[in-house]
Amino acid sequence: MGKLTGKAVVAQGGGPTAVINQSLVGAVLEARKYDCIENVYGALHGVSGIVKEDFLDLAQATSQNLELVARTPSSAMFSTRDKPDAEYCSRIFTVLKAHNVRYFYYMGGNDSADTCRIVSENAQAAGYEMRVVHIPKTIDNDLLVTDHCPGYGSAGLFVANAFAGINLDNRSLPGVYIGVVMGRNAGFLTAAGIFGKKYPDDGPHLIYLPEKAFDIDKFLGDVDRTYKQYGRCVIAVSEGISNAAGEAIITTLTKSDEKDAHGNVQLSGTGALGDALGDTIKKQLKIKRVRSDTFGYLQRSMLGTVSCVDAREAREAGEKAVQFSLSEGVDGSVAIRRIGDYAVDYILTPLATVARNAKPMPDAFIDVANSTVTDAFRKYARPLIGDMAGYGRVAAPVVKKLLNL
Amino acid sequence: MGKLTGKAVVAQGGGPTAVINQSLVGAVLEARKYDCIENVYGALHGVSGIVKEDFLDLAQATSQNLELVARTPSSAMFSTRDKPDAEYCSRIFTVLKAHNVRYFYYMGGNDSADTCRIVSENAQAAGYEMRVVHIPKTIDNDLLVTDHCPGYGSAGLFVANAFAGINLDNRSLPGVYIGVVMGRNAGFLTAAGIFGKKYPDDGPHLIYLPEKAFDIDKFLGDVDRTYKQYGRCVIAVSEGISNAAGEAIITTLTKSDEKDAHGNVQLSGTGALGDALGDTIKKQLKIKRVRSDTFGYLQRSMLGTVSCVDAREAREAGEKAVQFSLSEGVDGSVAIRRIGDYAVDYILTPLATVARNAKPMPDAFIDVANSTVTDAFRKYARPLIGDMAGYGRVAAPVVKKLLNL
Repeated sequence: MGKLTGKAVVAQGGGPTAVINQSLVGAVLEARKYDCIENVYGALHGVSGIVKEDFLDLAQATSQNLELVARTPSSAMFSTRDKPDAEYCSRIFTVLKAHNVRYFYYMGGNDSADTCRIVSENAQAAGYEMRVVHIPKTIDNDLLVTDHCPGYGSAGLFVANAFAGINLDNRSLPGVYIGVVMGRNAGFLTAAGIFGKKYPDDGPHLIYLPEKAFDIDKFLGDVDRTYKQYGRCVIAVSEGISNAAGEAIITTLTKSDEKDAHGNVQLSGTGALGDALGDTIKKQLKIKRVRSDTFGYLQRSMLGTVSCVDAREAREAGEKAVQFSLSEGVDGSVAIRRIGDYAVDYILTPLATVARNAKPMPDAFIDVANSTVTDAFRKYARPLIGDMAGYGRVAAPVVKKLLNL
Repeated sequence: MGKLTGKAVVAQGGGPTAVINQSLVGAVLEARKYDCIENVYGALHGVSGIVKEDFLDLAQATSQNLELVARTPSSAMFSTRDKPDAEYCSRIFTVLKAHNVRYFYYMGGNDSADTCRIVSENAQAAGYEMRVVHIPKTIDNDLLVTDHCPGYGSAGLFVANAFAGINLDNRSLPGVYIGVVMGRNAGFLTAAGIFGKKYPDDGPHLIYLPEKAFDIDKFLGDVDRTYKQYGRCVIAVSEGISNAAGEAIITTLTKSDEKDAHGNVQLSGTGALGDALGDTIKKQLKIKRVRSDTFGYLQRSMLGTVSCVDAREAREAGEKAVQFSLSEGVDGSVAIRRIGDYAVDYILTPLATVARNAKPMPDAFIDVANSTVTDAFRKYARPLIGDMAGYGRVAAPVVKKLLNL
């Protein structure tokens, strides 16, 4: 197979993650090693920067600078919410061709994979040889084929650390606490809250995921039972929970006059769901101390909360994209395969197998009856979130009372 | 001065911090060294555990266990919101005396210092010799006398890391972002958001503190100007901001029918203020992408977000409490003195100088005109939050456009 000679373009799409720049830098540093790759351009704001020819010349970034960027959360080349249709994709192709781009590496979720797929088809239809490789990233962990997605582990570590701390806080000053976690259709991130639970009576005691219909009566029963058992209750809730009819709970619980303000679509960047659930508990169960936090954007971009495993794999996914583009002779998406406990390797899967569709949490990971997750989920997700700080309870005997007032 | 012989009691009050157990363990391990301290009891749930004689025998905790506890966020002996009056304090004294407690170490804020003051007076009035030492802690950093409070640095690191990540996220996907930070009367914690700002155009662009009257028109003008200048705007807001009449903005902005649900007092554990400010920006400035997060309880208890400086000083404050109780012959509160750039030592200040009253941010730290904080604040607070992860922008030249479509 002859090596294609031309430029490479790297770009980032969708919501940022804490390690998406590891993939960027992995691809850039790897691409800079090969003579057939004449230059590496970084498109600003993803596909939108490509159609505007907004490129940075990444061959002229120092390796020191790139290593610093790799450790920086959020998309360093900036992102876009543009979802290219066929016409948009053909404009992308036109620009790439004009710059003699022969290697296109695009970091993103299933929409980005679909963009790759259409651009790849455009190139083939035009008889223009170009390798298009999608590099997976999403904190939702909902891409098909891959065992898990770069970006998930670090967001999962945030959620795990958050619930570990919240559980200790709630134990110190008891009450009901609701933590609302990102995840419109997939509950993987919310489920990571389980790693905040160390001792049997620790929270989160209850976990609600978008994969299973949310029933407000079961919810109130769960909270009531837990509160009576432990004198407190810590709850992890996906922002995307919906009822059996598929209606988002954020819209069914908030008053109609608030709907415009909070919108039917916007789930993040508002405390509405947590507040509404908290209000319902206060009113129905007459529990006084009820608090809710919506973890919001901190989950995907907080400085300093990075899973070492996630960072390493994100880096490797970027490197492998370049290696596959040179060795395989076909377009595709980089996917992680779990080959040990815990070890991975990487494969190139056809773009169509990843594009558009998403993967929910499998039933085997969800314990519906007890409103929590299973040990199978723990086994699956534990390696991904990396190291958590050690912590523990005081182990000391009780002192005999003298006064018994 | 003869050494008092008897037991010691340690207890924790008020809101937890990430390093309050460093103070606990500092005091316990130090107290266990001295023959005149016959045992160290830990009261469960602060003063409320004392009056119920709910003590653990901390002489029988291993040093390995205590070191693990020291690294654990949130009050390991549990906390209480009880604010003892004179009668309650006399019950505390009765129990301490019954157990021959001669050393009482109480971690907390200004209310806890006041409890110490009254208990100390009770003991003196009864002619019962006992050393009462208050160990400062608060994420609000609002205690008098001390240069700063253990607990503040770690919460400040959380807020700094949060805004550093949020700024990068907001730069990647521009819009208006509001982060609501804990702080009812003191703005130190919100102000720590400034350490999320590295480059001149970084956010947080605007910072609003409870020390200065919040004017909604100035706020909207600030946001409008910033958004026009940078195409985005990151805002840090204290939960306790109030207008010139002293009314909390959370109550003036939220609709009257929501007041019961959100309450007039409860500022944390609800997304109401951020949502209301966001809605106002959307309506008045017609900006589409407006998001708000309320950082909530994560700020004070998130696992893994600890300032190394804060942890060390919290530990030392606990140790010094015991040393002062043996060497000084008077009761008091441990206070940190800044003696270098950056170095500290510790003094014992009379309980009455710390009790009840709180310290706001000094005017020299607040830049009212520009809705931000001053370099004097940066100089003051930077050493306290410890190390932040390094991060940076891509440094590479722009590529010349070929098509200019």
